[in-house]
Amino acid sequence: MGNHENRTPVTVIGLGLMGRALAGAFLRAGHLTTVWNRTAAKAEPLVAQGARLAGSPREAVAAGPLVVVCVTDYDAVRELLEPLEDVLGDRVLVNLTSGTSRQARETAAWAARRGVTYLDGAIMAAPQGIGTADALVYYSGPRSAFDLHEPTLRSLGDEATHLGDDHGLPALYGVAATSVMWGLLDGFLQGAALLGTAGVDASTFAAFTRENIGTIVDWMSGYARQIDDGAYTALDATIEIQLDAMAHLVHESESVGVSADLPRFFKSLGDRAVAEGHGGDGYAAMIELFRKPSAGVRHQRRGGASTHNG
Amino acid sequence: MGNHENRTPVTVIGLGLMGRALAGAFLRAGHLTTVWNRTAAKAEPLVAQGARLAGSPREAVAAGPLVVVCVTDYDAVRELLEPLEDVLGDRVLVNLTSGTSRQARETAAWAARRGVTYLDGAIMAAPQGIGTADALVYYSGPRSAFDLHEPTLRSLGDEATHLGDDHGLPALYGVAATSVMWGLLDGFLQGAALLGTAGVDASTFAAFTRENIGTIVDWMSGYARQIDDGAYTALDATIEIQLDAMAHLVHESESVGVSADLPRFFKSLGDRAVAEGHGGDGYAAMIELFRKPSAGVRHQRRGGASTHNG
Repeated sequence: MGNHENRTPVTVIGLGLMGRALAGAFLRAGHLTTVWNRTAAKAEPLVAQGARLAGSPREAVAAGPLVVVCVTDYDAVRELLEPLEDVLGDRVLVNLTSGTSRQARETAAWAARRGVTYLDGAIMAAPQGIGTADALVYYSGPRSAFDLHEPTLRSLGDEATHLGDDHGLPALYGVAATSVMWGLLDGFLQGAALLGTAGVDASTFAAFTRENIGTIVDWMSGYARQIDDGAYTALDATIEIQLDAMAHLVHESESVGVSADLPRFFKSLGDRAVAEGHGGDGYAAMIELFRKPSAGVRHQRRGGASTHNG
Repeated sequence: MGNHENRTPVTVIGLGLMGRALAGAFLRAGHLTTVWNRTAAKAEPLVAQGARLAGSPREAVAAGPLVVVCVTDYDAVRELLEPLEDVLGDRVLVNLTSGTSRQARETAAWAARRGVTYLDGAIMAAPQGIGTADALVYYSGPRSAFDLHEPTLRSLGDEATHLGDDHGLPALYGVAATSVMWGLLDGFLQGAALLGTAGVDASTFAAFTRENIGTIVDWMSGYARQIDDGAYTALDATIEIQLDAMAHLVHESESVGVSADLPRFFKSLGDRAVAEGHGGDGYAAMIELFRKPSAGVRHQRRGGASTHNG
């Protein structure tokens, strides 16, 4: 596998912005790359770089042992692959289409019933980042299939990570990572807006945040251990005391005339935690609120209209 | 100042939980410490450790050059200090009472009119953390007064930081830091709840977050530079593209049956940014939303009922 003279041939199906980035990265890494797209014109720049354009999905799948799919959504994946189960049997199918953990698991169940070796993946990078050292791509599914094709998959980014057997994990890690990202960024923007009223520039506050983030991350790790233990003894301030500080953040934001929306959101969680009896606990107890479905949402864990029975 | 034989005497007024911690730290660092509290009984454990109990605020202020005040709120500060302006004139007054930037600036204006040298401070630590290396305390006001008493103030925590002349800065940095903290922690809890549905424990996700946080902090610094320049060209994904990812986070959260409140909050900001014409910009453009007062809030920047004219 994967010496310079004889790299694994790869098939890329779906040539949207991301699919084209994937195919381009495989080509640059020296893989014989076969592509297919519903609208063939999108393949032209890739063909100019040496890609082979297949005349049909079946021909594309036949071209090599590793088939990477990146299309609009999971409905498109199933529509595409359903007719190909006979040729997919001795392929490793890597689906990098964006979707939910549920869709990934349903597709894995479909693949299992047809004897198709299936890896589901999530791409934590913009198309322009694909093929660079930083591009992070998560995979789940059979470890052996990942190990076999890891050298090839690393063409997309050095950070090719196998998360486990559960095909739902890449989607879950993906959204979990974005949640941390927007949480930190929005918290930062609130602070930057507050300090901006005193003429402190955002870069100064960014440097300050950079210096202090390690402490917050340490608290986070401490709370994580408590969450896993199910015991929420206050390691520092109780939620009740933090609620005062949340009210203070709301008040300060209103007082200097910046948005108080995010502060009020923080405080609404604190109010709920106290109402639910967690006032004397540490912040880790907040996990109880995050675990509950939002009011008015009928969740779909036990099946529902969107289940495929393919 | 501050050699071991002849440390600066300190006065601590207000012996709530935090005030007692402050006085205790000064005592442990070898400072002659005079205390006063409305309810004298609270001073007993400190007196047992060597503190002197003053019979009145006036007597407490007379005891030494550095007067630290930590009481319930700024109204209590003013009520306490108004009658003492004659004895405060040659003291450095350090107010560590929790309050808003507005209250700190008003108190500074009051002190300036009376020739009192005034530092305002914010304590970024729990009472039990005071006097440890990690305890972070911010100060603003005349640099010379801070420099003079810095060795003494470092008894409260090694991280004694002078932020500038503007007395409002400690309060603003304080709330800005909590905003980043809750933002990151809530984002983490959302992710932990999501991954918890797949049996991934919170500590595993904490380790994962620890590994990836540097990348997010780098983005944050890049956005900060754009905010300072007032130009929001997308460095990576546009807000419009991130809005899809926000919708995806909402959908995944609903699908696995955890709270979608925080995801919906993120998305509501994305929706607003797009509605205000920032869809093609990078995430830095979100600062425009954070800078605007929340709907229905009459902000008080230009004076109002809570202004003291002391």
